[in-house]
Amino acid sequence: MTDPRPHTPRSEGDPQAHPLAAELTRALGPQKVLVSAGERRMYSYDAIQMGVVPVCVVLPESTADVVLAVRAARAAGIPIVGRGAASGLSGGAAPTQPSLVLSFTRMTTLSIDPLRREAHVQAGVITLAISEAARPHGLVYPPDPASFRTSTIGGNLAENAGGPMCFKYGVTGDYVKALEFVDAEGEVHTLTRDAYDLAGLLIGSEGTLGLITEATLRLSTPAKFTRTLMSSFPTVGQAAEAVSSAIAAGAVPAKLEFMDRACVNAIEDYLNIGLPREAGAVLLVDTDGDDLETVEEELELVERACLQSGGEVRRAATDTEAAALWQARRSVSPALGRIRPQRMNEDIVVPRSVLSEVVREIEALGAASGLKLVQFGHIGDGNLHPNILFDPRTESEEAVHALAQQIASVAIRHGGVLSGEHGIGSMKLPFMREAIDPVTLQCLWNAKHAFDPSETLNPGKVLPGPGETAHD
Amino acid sequence: MTDPRPHTPRSEGDPQAHPLAAELTRALGPQKVLVSAGERRMYSYDAIQMGVVPVCVVLPESTADVVLAVRAARAAGIPIVGRGAASGLSGGAAPTQPSLVLSFTRMTTLSIDPLRREAHVQAGVITLAISEAARPHGLVYPPDPASFRTSTIGGNLAENAGGPMCFKYGVTGDYVKALEFVDAEGEVHTLTRDAYDLAGLLIGSEGTLGLITEATLRLSTPAKFTRTLMSSFPTVGQAAEAVSSAIAAGAVPAKLEFMDRACVNAIEDYLNIGLPREAGAVLLVDTDGDDLETVEEELELVERACLQSGGEVRRAATDTEAAALWQARRSVSPALGRIRPQRMNEDIVVPRSVLSEVVREIEALGAASGLKLVQFGHIGDGNLHPNILFDPRTESEEAVHALAQQIASVAIRHGGVLSGEHGIGSMKLPFMREAIDPVTLQCLWNAKHAFDPSETLNPGKVLPGPGETAHD
Repeated sequence: MTDPRPHTPRSEGDPQAHPLAAELTRALGPQKVLVSAGERRMYSYDAIQMGVVPVCVVLPESTADVVLAVRAARAAGIPIVGRGAASGLSGGAAPTQPSLVLSFTRMTTLSIDPLRREAHVQAGVITLAISEAARPHGLVYPPDPASFRTSTIGGNLAENAGGPMCFKYGVTGDYVKALEFVDAEGEVHTLTRDAYDLAGLLIGSEGTLGLITEATLRLSTPAKFTRTLMSSFPTVGQAAEAVSSAIAAGAVPAKLEFMDRACVNAIEDYLNIGLPREAGAVLLVDTDGDDLETVEEELELVERACLQSGGEVRRAATDTEAAALWQARRSVSPALGRIRPQRMNEDIVVPRSVLSEVVREIEALGAASGLKLVQFGHIGDGNLHPNILFDPRTESEEAVHALAQQIASVAIRHGGVLSGEHGIGSMKLPFMREAIDPVTLQCLWNAKHAFDPSETLNPGKVLPGPGETAHD
Repeated sequence: MTDPRPHTPRSEGDPQAHPLAAELTRALGPQKVLVSAGERRMYSYDAIQMGVVPVCVVLPESTADVVLAVRAARAAGIPIVGRGAASGLSGGAAPTQPSLVLSFTRMTTLSIDPLRREAHVQAGVITLAISEAARPHGLVYPPDPASFRTSTIGGNLAENAGGPMCFKYGVTGDYVKALEFVDAEGEVHTLTRDAYDLAGLLIGSEGTLGLITEATLRLSTPAKFTRTLMSSFPTVGQAAEAVSSAIAAGAVPAKLEFMDRACVNAIEDYLNIGLPREAGAVLLVDTDGDDLETVEEELELVERACLQSGGEVRRAATDTEAAALWQARRSVSPALGRIRPQRMNEDIVVPRSVLSEVVREIEALGAASGLKLVQFGHIGDGNLHPNILFDPRTESEEAVHALAQQIASVAIRHGGVLSGEHGIGSMKLPFMREAIDPVTLQCLWNAKHAFDPSETLNPGKVLPGPGETAHD
């Protein structure tokens, strides 16, 4: 849910006096431990989900602080939840039980090694800061989740975050050369990506296997030239067809974003920049590279595919115009927030070949439900974000959950998955059993128990337990 | 060891009559099961290591055959070893105990989906066949291990194989969208790369966590243009310096290969194509891309870096000349085979910044040992292959192992790792404990036991047991 104002916490007891809080305050000093109910309450939710108020919050400044806190929580039998900027959209950082929350925002050491083309970061570094530090060396860190001005790299690693650039340049995990993590026993491990790729297993595990404290990231050189176009289509099917034929023709756009009519109109209401309100679907496309002629040829491939599928094309003539178009895409979240106070943001990935069918089916489900529904996403990857907008004061949360469940079922029926880039968290947990066969789920639980046998780390996330099934 | 002629097997018993072989013959039919001692012996070694003669060999034609064989072996308490083309260089496919060997060479179904840019392959498909099938669609499968004319994709997945192209284009695992595997219980799992990335964990696990039966691979478009140069340097240090400054200047060569003086002379003895015998080190470089001007500019960046570091540069004027230079690199294995009948091929990766120091230290260790040593490798990644050439009839295997151990220690001391692309197998097992701290090793064992609690799958590989330490 987008409204992060805290309401009555679900569980509190008499936490002011919790012995773990007292012990950690003694060991770490009061400036690293939040004990009061008011402060703790601020760490009970992320950008989408309310959770349980933690018994204690630690703001570690080093891996040693993390080790100490983990060992104390273990000894006290208290679950441990890692947290970055809490900009996540699946409840990954919202505790499901009274827990110790470790908020990594003070672990912000960042250094660039231009010769090795690497960034060395602690978990609390803001994602955008990596590219800002790399830029003077002619380098860039490509993954660009929409939240990259606020999200931390630790959160990005925990969720294996994507973004518009990921179609061409890959997701967070593709840039990790090594990482350090603290396990459920408080032991520190450094992993490179060889032998068993445990680093790859930690990435995207949402803090359920270990707490990532540091990482070595691969940097790359930014493209010298970028060209942008917007194309509007009478129907969603035509937009999907244009995407498929552009890719089949050999185009690999740097960004390839889709917005449906409801989404375009929400942005236009908000920004009033002349977006085509009557279009059934809009594509926003960047091509990039180091050779201008090639970049423009690639844009022409996309343009031709759009025109052949019945789209109208508008090329950005200047950088300013391109920036305005991308400003539109980045305004989706605030624009939708004006329509209804809350939203349920899904994150499905389906094969591109069934995209138009999936978008139409979801559109029909939305219309039948009477709820406000918009769709947008990174269409090059088939990553779609159907958003249900609602007002919890006047609309039924059961109806929202029922529609979300129907949307998830559409994705699975068409060979899709439920988490493109936002993670499973607690929000998509009930759908996981439907998506994963029981033997593979057992395999995931075995992996979980290999790292965290006592289920201390971020309980209630990613893996449905034996009792949890999809509610339908 | 390169000489694959079988000698006396270490363990045999009376295998003609092994009850597992009889049972599998009944269940699968005699054409899928090899029972005779002569046939079984052919499956006891890979390209580098002699192993134990299997009790039985199954040539499955489907995942169902694999499931049946795994369940029968489990019931009989016999270990299970998967095998592709057995071109591996670390003993991964050579049994360490009397085992059931599953040789995947008959599982060769291959299809290309040009719209999704995917190849669907069974484990026994020859690596090169994927690009051959993709090429008519304007697509290519980039990973190019030296053995790609003979190796299978299943073997490449098990070892997470690299190759010259991997500096720019990534290794096998970077191209995997989904895979199917059979676990130690005979259950079939299909994994995509979301939630916990178990697919990534399986890749490179050398058949110790499960048997990969099928995969969906990402294809890409081949570069339109390639340019090639060779540069020779008086010393190894100058070559390493040229590599670092070319990369720092922004060059990302498609291939960037290094050969030391001994290696160059071995190839020249073999091919007689005019390689610079007096050079201390030779670099072989490809730049590629879709825009000729950019490709040539990038080659110029490399050329300038080579000249500034004191190298002599020869550009390939024609495709034929470029092909001849790459033929030289691909001839390393046969060329070395003429010098001594056997070789110990190491596969270290060190930071590029310490490359020249590492190469010189290893050179000095070779000279001090009195053994014949050559060095070559994918220098862009810091992936170096020091090869000890020896004749087991006249030279001491202990001396060879002692030198190999010293080389591994040099790599680890300089922050390197022991397996760039060949895997750990059984050959590098004794060095693993030195490379991995005990808590992380326990973490690896926990992951192993989560998949294979009874240690049925490829025992004696990747992970050193409590009893195994580096021999020094």
